[in-house]
Amino acid sequence: MKAKVYVTLKPSVLDPQGKAIHHSVELLGYEQIEDVRQGKYFEIALDANVSEIDARQTAEQIAKNVLANPVIEDYRVEIA
Amino acid sequence: MKAKVYVTLKPSVLDPQGKAIHHSVELLGYEQIEDVRQGKYFEIALDANVSEIDARQTAEQIAKNVLANPVIEDYRVEIA
Repeated sequence: MKAKVYVTLKPSVLDPQGKAIHHSVELLGYEQIEDVRQGKYFEIALDANVSEIDARQTAEQIAKNVLANPVIEDYRVEIA
Repeated sequence: MKAKVYVTLKPSVLDPQGKAIHHSVELLGYEQIEDVRQGKYFEIALDANVSEIDARQTAEQIAKNVLANPVIEDYRVEIA
């Protein structure tokens, strides 16, 4: 069982890395880009005998306690 | 229109950051975790009047040329 965790900065938090990427792609000639935001992506492989409910619960806990900083970041968990 | 780009290390490439996270979550008592891999996640906001086909093409080009290093990384583009 595999859990995918997406961690993104909260919309109200400035993202200088995204801004830098936005500026770079503008210089490269891509003019239809309005904004770029960078986040983090994690793939967590769990034991095959873990139920989907347990996998989601474990991944949510890990996302909240280890992978994301809830003060400035949002996270989303998908089970695949 | 929004494009989401996921950049992950190719499976054959070592991921020391993922290994460190795996080790940390084991120390925290999560024993059902087999592996953790870290990647990057980008949200690209495009002009509203860009067609889905153009948006995908632009996002694929940016992913290939700017966001990912195709020697060691894979990328995936989703249009939302």
